[in-house]
Amino acid sequence: MDFDTLDVGYDIPARPGQRIDEVLTPALIVDLDRFERNLRRMRDFIARTGLRLRAHAKTHKSADIARMQIAEGGACGICCQKVSEAEAFVRAGITDILVSNEVWGEARVDRLARLAAKARIVVCVDDIRSVRDLSHAARRHGSTLEILVEIDCGAHRCGVAPGAAAADLARAVEQAPALRFEGLQAYQGSLQHIENPVERRQSADAAARATRTTVEMLAAAGIECRTIGGAGTGSFVLDASLGVINELQCGSFIFMDAHYDRVEEEDGGRLGGMENSLFVLAGVMSAAIAGRPVCDAGLKALAVDSGLPRVERPGVSYLQASDEHGVLDDPDRMLDLGDQVRLVPGHCDPTCNLYDSYVAVRGERVEAIWPVTARGKLF
Amino acid sequence: MDFDTLDVGYDIPARPGQRIDEVLTPALIVDLDRFERNLRRMRDFIARTGLRLRAHAKTHKSADIARMQIAEGGACGICCQKVSEAEAFVRAGITDILVSNEVWGEARVDRLARLAAKARIVVCVDDIRSVRDLSHAARRHGSTLEILVEIDCGAHRCGVAPGAAAADLARAVEQAPALRFEGLQAYQGSLQHIENPVERRQSADAAARATRTTVEMLAAAGIECRTIGGAGTGSFVLDASLGVINELQCGSFIFMDAHYDRVEEEDGGRLGGMENSLFVLAGVMSAAIAGRPVCDAGLKALAVDSGLPRVERPGVSYLQASDEHGVLDDPDRMLDLGDQVRLVPGHCDPTCNLYDSYVAVRGERVEAIWPVTARGKLF
Repeated sequence: MDFDTLDVGYDIPARPGQRIDEVLTPALIVDLDRFERNLRRMRDFIARTGLRLRAHAKTHKSADIARMQIAEGGACGICCQKVSEAEAFVRAGITDILVSNEVWGEARVDRLARLAAKARIVVCVDDIRSVRDLSHAARRHGSTLEILVEIDCGAHRCGVAPGAAAADLARAVEQAPALRFEGLQAYQGSLQHIENPVERRQSADAAARATRTTVEMLAAAGIECRTIGGAGTGSFVLDASLGVINELQCGSFIFMDAHYDRVEEEDGGRLGGMENSLFVLAGVMSAAIAGRPVCDAGLKALAVDSGLPRVERPGVSYLQASDEHGVLDDPDRMLDLGDQVRLVPGHCDPTCNLYDSYVAVRGERVEAIWPVTARGKLF
Repeated sequence: MDFDTLDVGYDIPARPGQRIDEVLTPALIVDLDRFERNLRRMRDFIARTGLRLRAHAKTHKSADIARMQIAEGGACGICCQKVSEAEAFVRAGITDILVSNEVWGEARVDRLARLAAKARIVVCVDDIRSVRDLSHAARRHGSTLEILVEIDCGAHRCGVAPGAAAADLARAVEQAPALRFEGLQAYQGSLQHIENPVERRQSADAAARATRTTVEMLAAAGIECRTIGGAGTGSFVLDASLGVINELQCGSFIFMDAHYDRVEEEDGGRLGGMENSLFVLAGVMSAAIAGRPVCDAGLKALAVDSGLPRVERPGVSYLQASDEHGVLDDPDRMLDLGDQVRLVPGHCDPTCNLYDSYVAVRGERVEAIWPVTARGKLF
């Protein structure tokens, strides 16, 4: 090491030019060749279908990746989930952001309206009280907030009922000063994770019908939906074929994860043809028990809510996670102290949120370090 | 807000003096009255039993809390799990640290040996190759590394077998330049989480027997164990009664969590009498579906590896977590948009690691903001 890590407040696990075996583990690795292929696959899909892509930045929280998605990946802008996240991206130069979520509370609404003076900001609402609060704040800051009315198209999380309730809210938005009605948020989050393609299509069909009904009801009332936003990595191919959503909000596709590896397209192929480009690089820190090496990536290095990671090494599996340790099963005793293993995390979004930076590698060489710009931006 | 959050790189969810209902959610809350009672309970336990406490800082990763534990909580120093974590604490002024874990690899070993020139550093080994590497590095930096030989006393994670294997390693440490044999690391991690007190005592008995045998074997060879380290929040009362461990490494006791709430002492009481002092403060962001309010604390605000959080409000429970949302069950419809709820996380350590700061509250008032000093220090 040619710098004194005691004297700096920020540690990076590697420097460009280093070999991957010099990376301090655990580290969050982006395999650039795979990453760029995923970027192009989605760009081509967008070009082919004529839909817009608003890439979800909650997955990666990286300004570098967001810029690539807009410059080279065909995205019209990004989605965020939180106001503080959107602020971090605006600060980094992104100028078209949908906060694909509800924003409430005086301080937060104020910050969002202030942000809308610096960038195009779209936000979701599912409560008449938020229409009033957002309108007041935007007037105060001389900004305009664009609004998607969120409908509950099957996930029973946020969103008003499709149909009349949504139309009432849309009318209130149309009448509110400093707001502009932009369309509907029609994201069905739970269908993304249905592994069986037949059941997934049934849920997607139901969501599309509810959304179409609402769009038609609004049209009859003279209200146009310029944006009908939704779809995720688990459903975008399906949603595109159903012809209702016109702006895709996929995030995980750029990385994929071990959970999405189990969700197949209807033809049995991988979702959108995407491949795993994200890994947690772990190192074997104890080889004291034969066949049970212990690696240095545990619960603080991997989100396990959607299952344990898959080890990218035939014959080795990840058995058990504790805070800073992962016990591996290595019956053929291939691994020894200091060896590295690549782990495909069970769930990419909360895993990326654990790290301060990505180590972008090409082959066996570190090419770049990308900060996780919006890491921990929780409110 | 009297500062422009667009112009600062670091957001805090509250400022001292604010009321708790002004805190931006989700936020990590320390209830100071409860926290201070836990601090005193452990200080009194240490005074009563004559054991040492080396408080585990992997739980909180906070220099402020570490300093309080040393100044007022009876701790002789702290434990860390990672070299980069130890560096952060040394930088913050902590001078006596056990890295209660194995450290390997040229860059990391070099950093640890360098750190030992600035603070007392103790580290665990379970491999003869680490003895050589640590010795070389400490000689290079003119420092001394103190060593605990880690034994596997039942958790089958790291550590050599108790008895002869440990004695061989201890002898190698004694002979290695720039190392000093300090004793044994005898932490049985898995027994911390055994909810049944009878089964937990059986595991603790077995670990104590294995440790005692090893200590006696070393004594017969003329090697003294000044430190026999181990015990966690789930076992320290039990371990103290068994009389083998002389330095307790408890971490979670200062906060507790929903998982440890289910682990009882043999008399049916709470572990060490400790109470929940850590909460995730969440806000209701959507009340569109009656009886199913949605809060803003999901997988990026709460570690769920040990179960979903408990809601500190009778009649309300946390049903389902997604990345940025938590669906609540509220059959009596008590909660409305903007209401706050306190959640007791399932697992405190990985939850704290998600946040940049603690909001320390007394009653309904914010008293201090404490940075999570070693957040994300993974290697």
